[in-house]
This record gives sequence, C-alpha cells and structure tokens, in this order.
Amino acid sequence: MSTANRIKGVLSPVVTPFKADYSPDTARFVAHCEWLMSQNCGLAVFGTNSEANSLAAEERMSLLDAVVAAGVDTSRMMPGTGCCSITETVKITSHAVKHGCAGVLMLPPFYYKGVSEEGLYRHYSEVIQRVGDDRLRIYLYHIPPVAVVGITPPLVERLLKAYPTAIAGMKDSSGDWNNTKTFLDAFAKSGFDVFVGSESFLLANMKNGGVGTISATANVNPAAIHKLYTEWKNADADAQQQRLNLVRDTVGKKYVMISALKQTIAIYAGDPAWGKVRPPLVELTAEQSKSLAAELKEIGFTMPGLARTAATV
Amino acid sequence: MSTANRIKGVLSPVVTPFKADYSPDTARFVAHCEWLMSQNCGLAVFGTNSEANSLAAEERMSLLDAVVAAGVDTSRMMPGTGCCSITETVKITSHAVKHGCAGVLMLPPFYYKGVSEEGLYRHYSEVIQRVGDDRLRIYLYHIPPVAVVGITPPLVERLLKAYPTAIAGMKDSSGDWNNTKTFLDAFAKSGFDVFVGSESFLLANMKNGGVGTISATANVNPAAIHKLYTEWKNADADAQQQRLNLVRDTVGKKYVMISALKQTIAIYAGDPAWGKVRPPLVELTAEQSKSLAAELKEIGFTMPGLARTAATV
Repeated sequence: MSTANRIKGVLSPVVTPFKADYSPDTARFVAHCEWLMSQNCGLAVFGTNSEANSLAAEERMSLLDAVVAAGVDTSRMMPGTGCCSITETVKITSHAVKHGCAGVLMLPPFYYKGVSEEGLYRHYSEVIQRVGDDRLRIYLYHIPPVAVVGITPPLVERLLKAYPTAIAGMKDSSGDWNNTKTFLDAFAKSGFDVFVGSESFLLANMKNGGVGTISATANVNPAAIHKLYTEWKNADADAQQQRLNLVRDTVGKKYVMISALKQTIAIYAGDPAWGKVRPPLVELTAEQSKSLAAELKEIGFTMPGLARTAATV
Repeated sequence: MSTANRIKGVLSPVVTPFKADYSPDTARFVAHCEWLMSQNCGLAVFGTNSEANSLAAEERMSLLDAVVAAGVDTSRMMPGTGCCSITETVKITSHAVKHGCAGVLMLPPFYYKGVSEEGLYRHYSEVIQRVGDDRLRIYLYHIPPVAVVGITPPLVERLLKAYPTAIAGMKDSSGDWNNTKTFLDAFAKSGFDVFVGSESFLLANMKNGGVGTISATANVNPAAIHKLYTEWKNADADAQQQRLNLVRDTVGKKYVMISALKQTIAIYAGDPAWGKVRPPLVELTAEQSKSLAAELKEIGFTMPGLARTAATV
C-alpha cells in the first residue's frame, strides 16, 4: 500500500488559548494555527499539550469547525480524537474525517487500567467499523506517563493485519528511545508511520525509518524543528539536534510544560492572555514567568513572525 | 450544619447492562436498580464498576432519565459525574441535581497526572460555582489504583472551608484502611461523610465514624452488606464481615471484578445477556464463567428475588 500521501514531518499539539472565563478563545486559536502553518508545522490539534482532555467533545468540534472555516489546510491536520468511550471517540473522529483531516491521533481508552490487549483491540476495532469511512487514518497514541494505558507491539500487529489502511502509524511519547526503536524495527517497513513525541528523538527517528515528530515544543520552536526534519542528513544535524534540545529543556524541564508553552507565547507575542490554562493545570507564577523570560532570552530564543500574527487578534 | 438528611448506608455502583451492539440496555438497567432498592441498597449509578467511563455524557443522562421516569427514589441516588473536563462535569452534575439526586460521586479530572492541589481545588471550585445549586452534595471520589489522580487531606480541608455545604463527603477506594482512617480522624466530626469503597472495610468504617460503603459487590450481595451496616454493633458483626469478605473474594479475586459481577447476575438471573461488557473490558470466558458458578455454589451464595425481577425484563 502506498503511504506517499500520508501526513509527515513536524506537527504541533496546538495549545488551546482560553478566555478569562475558561472558554476556548477561538480567535487566538485560529491565529496560532495559522502561524504554525506558516512555519511548515502541521496541526495535531487536541493533543495532550492542547489540554484537549480538559475540553468537552463539543468544544473540540467547535474549535475544529472554526479552524476549517478559516481556510486552514486540513491535509496538514491530525486532531486528537481518543476518548474513554467508544461513543465519543466515534463522534469526534467522524467529525474530523468529514472535514478531510489527514489523520487522527487516537489515545486508547485511558480510565480503566490493566486492561487486556484483546479489550484494546476490540475498542479500536469497534471505532474503525463505526466510523466506516475509507479516508480514516489512525495514529495510535502511546503516552504511558499520562494515559498509563499504552500501545504494545502485539496490539499494533493485530490492528495492522485487520485494518491495514485505517491504521497508519503512531505517536510514541514514552520518552524511551528503545521503545520507539522496537516499533520502528517491527512495523516501519510495512508502512506504519512512527512519529516521536519529542523532537529530542527526531534525528534518531529519521535515521531509523521514522517520519517526523509531534512535539509540544513545536508550538514555540516550529521552524528550527522543521529545519532538522528536512536536513537530518546534513553535516550539522547533530548540532541542530543539540540546539533543539536546549530550547526544549529551557521551556519544559523546570516548569509544567503546557503552562510554560503558553507563557512563552504570552511573552513573545506580548499578549499576557495567552498564559491562561484550564484546571487542573495552573499558570506559571509571576516569578516563574520572569525566570522563563530571562532563560529564553539568555539562549537567544526568538519566535519569528509571532508578534505580528498575535497583534491581528 | 446538620447532616441528618444526607444519603448513608450501602450503595451499589450499579453495573450497566449492554445490548449486543454495546448500546445501554435501559430495561435491564432499570430492573436491576429496582431490585437493588428492594434490598435496601442505594444507587451509585455511573461509578467505576458501572463502566461509566466507557459511556458518553449523553448516555449517562439518558439512563438517569429512564431510572427517574421509572419512579426510583432519587433520595437514594448518588450518580457518578466526574469527567476530565469542567464543562462535561458541570453538565451531568447539574442534570443529576435537577433530578433531585441525594448526591453526586465526583472523580477528580483524571487525564493529566501529577497535577497540583491548587489545580484540583480550582477544578472542584469552578464546578461548584457553575452548578450554582444549593442542593448540590459532592462526594469526592478517591480511587488511585484507577484514576491515579487522587484526593488528599489538604484538598478536602480547603474545599470544606470554602464550600461546607456542597462538600458532603468522600468515597475512599484506595484499598488502604490507614488512608480511610486518616480522613475519618481529620474530617468525620465536622460532618464529612466517609464511605469505604469496599465492604471489606465496612465494620472498621462504622466503628470509626464512617457512614457506609459504596461497593462493587453490593451489585450481587446487597442484603447481607446492608445487614452488617445495620447490625455492626451486634455480637456476630465479625462473623458477618468474614462472610461478606468470602463472597467478595469469590467474585473479585480471581476475575476482573466488573466482568465477574455481570456474569454473576447472568448466572443467578438465568440471563446470559447480562454478561456483556464494553471494550476495553472483556467478558469472562466460558470456562471462567463455569468456574465462577461452581465457586459461588460452593459457598452457598444466593441472590434472593433477582430471578423474579430479571424475568420481568
């Protein structure tokens, strides 16, 4: 099966801005999507870093409608659609497929723990059959530090065999390169596209048959990540990777990643409203925000074009 | 503040029957609720053992509407309403309060892990303010083996101080008596009602100021659990507790609890359809079902009145 037309490269789990009353801020969201696209960054809207699991299904669907209405290219979109229930997962997956999205990033049902491979197989199988659309491309989302319930090689093997077109790949956010390598070695040659969940593994992923990264930090550093994606065979690839790691560590190592990403946008867009997060998350403190700004300045970090876009909101 | 009118005693996280196509089986659900009520068992519908987290919000609300329409006493009901998002939690909590339910059992938002006490406080606080109904009585749901995100004494202290009427108590499903004791010692005297999440701690809970249990096994053994609840000061209380433990261990120790509970009902109602579970869970195998039936028979287990009720479905 040809996989040439599949979505690849660098995608951002787009952070979701909120108004003072915690409702989604559609205008800022669309503007951020447009800025990311201008940086060659695809849109994995409604991922973990999008606080998607703090949004109701209807809120996700409204935001997707707004992005599509703004004319954003859905062939560069991979919305997160995995919920705990089959019913909700089918609802928002169908919605994304009907919008022509290139793929969907699908968490396993994550409430019940210690569930069997058979149970997860039945869940995904039931979802695929109910969506019942040949355009469906699922990227299985493995993020054990958060979802706890994970994706295993035997599960991928069963699903690929039963649904070779619908099962298109995965995002591995285990943070464990050996785990990514296991999936690459087992499935990459049969057209299973592996995205790493952090750009810190991007070079390794590309060297081993992977297709890109879907990474939190792509919200703030998309162009540099995309540059390594296209130049991973170049002589300076290791240096590029090190620079990416420095930015990622500066944003995500000392602070809660989602809050720090939003505060970074707030700082570089001169737009404090961007800092808002939904409970159970909390914003960075004023002191943390000040430290973050100083640390980013110290490493010479910039977000070209962002201020202009944000100013149009 | 008087807590005399609050819901107490033995409640069952009512198992949710499904049809062959995995849709909720409303008729069997209502019949099971009615049987439980006939056994002096309150209805904690939409708990963990109800597979509530495999149901969409709309499915929960439809089932609650059906139970209420059937005339079941809502003063004996405590629906589970805690979702990952504030928006969905508020929606189904308001629905339950408007139906006159005695309380709601509220999970913390459980997707994001390692969240702060401040973040959880903001979540519950926001929910209480949005529901904005004096009748709201929240029972905080602590079930770390499944939700991973838990309820801590400092969180309870803050919430009780800010919302002394809305915060009515908790269900402790930690499986750790020391943890239950900590909450009882800290808050029981100020009118915070502690339910244990397993009847194996019922006697200990009653001796230490608790108010009852919300337990999986109450789906199949409600009368005996209620008997200990009313007779915990009697001379044979220890013997009653041991008998309860024997039944619980027989159903839940060798098998996945939810699947085994449903199969137990299937066996005693002579109604195989009851065995069905939604993915990611799987039914007991034919062999497991046979073993379970034999083990229950061996300990002389019965479900008085069940067959009659099921036969009316």
